[in-house]
Amino acid sequence: MPGAVLAPTSAPGYPAHVRIHEVGPRDGLQNEPATLPPDVKAEFIHRLAAAGLTTIEATSFVHPRWVPQLADAEQVFPLVRDLTGVRLPVLVPNERGLERALAHGAREVAVFASATESFARANLNRTVDESLTMFTPVVARSLDAGVPVRGYLSMCFGDPWEGDVPVTQVVRVARRLSDLGCAELSLGDTIGVATPGRVAELLNALAAAGIPADRLAVHFHDTYGQALANTLTALRHGVTTVDASAGGLGGCPYAKSATGNLATEDLLWMLNGLGISTGVDLERLVATSLWLARRLGRPSPSRTVRALSHQEPRE
Amino acid sequence: MPGAVLAPTSAPGYPAHVRIHEVGPRDGLQNEPATLPPDVKAEFIHRLAAAGLTTIEATSFVHPRWVPQLADAEQVFPLVRDLTGVRLPVLVPNERGLERALAHGAREVAVFASATESFARANLNRTVDESLTMFTPVVARSLDAGVPVRGYLSMCFGDPWEGDVPVTQVVRVARRLSDLGCAELSLGDTIGVATPGRVAELLNALAAAGIPADRLAVHFHDTYGQALANTLTALRHGVTTVDASAGGLGGCPYAKSATGNLATEDLLWMLNGLGISTGVDLERLVATSLWLARRLGRPSPSRTVRALSHQEPRE
Repeated sequence: MPGAVLAPTSAPGYPAHVRIHEVGPRDGLQNEPATLPPDVKAEFIHRLAAAGLTTIEATSFVHPRWVPQLADAEQVFPLVRDLTGVRLPVLVPNERGLERALAHGAREVAVFASATESFARANLNRTVDESLTMFTPVVARSLDAGVPVRGYLSMCFGDPWEGDVPVTQVVRVARRLSDLGCAELSLGDTIGVATPGRVAELLNALAAAGIPADRLAVHFHDTYGQALANTLTALRHGVTTVDASAGGLGGCPYAKSATGNLATEDLLWMLNGLGISTGVDLERLVATSLWLARRLGRPSPSRTVRALSHQEPRE
Repeated sequence: MPGAVLAPTSAPGYPAHVRIHEVGPRDGLQNEPATLPPDVKAEFIHRLAAAGLTTIEATSFVHPRWVPQLADAEQVFPLVRDLTGVRLPVLVPNERGLERALAHGAREVAVFASATESFARANLNRTVDESLTMFTPVVARSLDAGVPVRGYLSMCFGDPWEGDVPVTQVVRVARRLSDLGCAELSLGDTIGVATPGRVAELLNALAAAGIPADRLAVHFHDTYGQALANTLTALRHGVTTVDASAGGLGGCPYAKSATGNLATEDLLWMLNGLGISTGVDLERLVATSLWLARRLGRPSPSRTVRALSHQEPRE
């Protein structure tokens, strides 16, 4: 029957569809030593969209002093904002950032909170509660403007200063972000220490606290190689939005501390194998990551990008 | 109560204990470009044992012409065979190899079969059935000598020439190896293409064919970054023996085709996080992999080794 929706053919216990929230242009480039010119960043976003990604975090309207790699947000965003069929959230640190984002046509924004006091202090120079107070008018004004807000929650599992982060602490901040009006919460394992049992525990606790999996995204880092196993666990718990970074951008394999984002291609290899649809074309995505790697002057840390760009039978 | 067995504290749905079958000295070093002297290899095995590994595949009694990196089996094995409390299986390709292994005191051996005709032809220069015929007296003579045999089954998921490998084909060869008398079967994803749904499907089919998870080991490669997610799936299906290679040995990140073994440290990070006991000390294992990496003149591809050897809080 023409136009009929095909029955899901995903593996038992997994969702039929996953939305990939591509963070390469923002979280990825923010953590790369090299800085690219605005037109190359815009071309990167256009290529990601052409590969089928439907949510691409485009940039951050943070003060240029704090994130010099993204100081060109006002140049980049106008070059991509007219892409059709693509959601282009931008990070906003505060009301001033939100004003700039809205003035440049942003239709989705994200705020960046911390589950731990140490990281709130180090990254936001505030206590957790002070940062939530700062976000309150940001979220309210966004919603007034009809702009949905994603809440990033970092350090959900471990913190470099505090060690293991108690689940109750994460649930408390998650509830606060939810109460502020964040439509979606992205649970970040900022230092990459999480393992699947902790992921299951947190997702169960959030569901019990009234934040079900369909309002959550997961954001894992591959610092200890755990990102995909953790993502698999989240999928089994009903999460269908996964953050990933094209080519593993932001996790340079030659940097002293490789704190890489999960590579979108490694994620896609698993989702394709599980029969989970994403709408993303792996081959075009790999070509995009190779194109960008040449511009960055270093190979992609994604294992799938490397494997597919050197295909040869193994003896 | 003194001596009482503690209740398992592993995460729900996972085994309480996993035995790591360390393949670094054999499968790892076999695939490294550099060749180490016998005394360094022996010291490597001693260090692995001191880190708590209880099964260490020590070497291969293959003809030196085929695997020059392991041509020193007769020098290495006598230097390690008296290690107490450690199982030290060795690979034997045929009866001649078995004779040499037994003459040098091997108390466990392994044979290496293929699930596909193409790889049997490329690797063993035989059809699958001819290779099983060749293994028949090897297994029989081993068992006569009181020496248990592990059967490796390679290309269980994908094959570089044949693509996806049908589950029925893998089950057929697995049954044959089992009927020959192999006590344990190690399911190899030799080219690293497997994803969790395929792993579940194969384990279910093997269980239905009378080969339960407690007779199986899994042997995943990280070529596409899938090894740990696949291992997690196997653990949920009751598999409690996992092959891994210290430091990710055998998967050089700078080689054109990075077909790396799962790094024992990355596995251990996940198992520790899940509360699954292994008896292995992660810190000592990382120290061993760093020691070996210096001898090989290149960094370890294990993400956990890299993270733990450059620990610093992330800004």
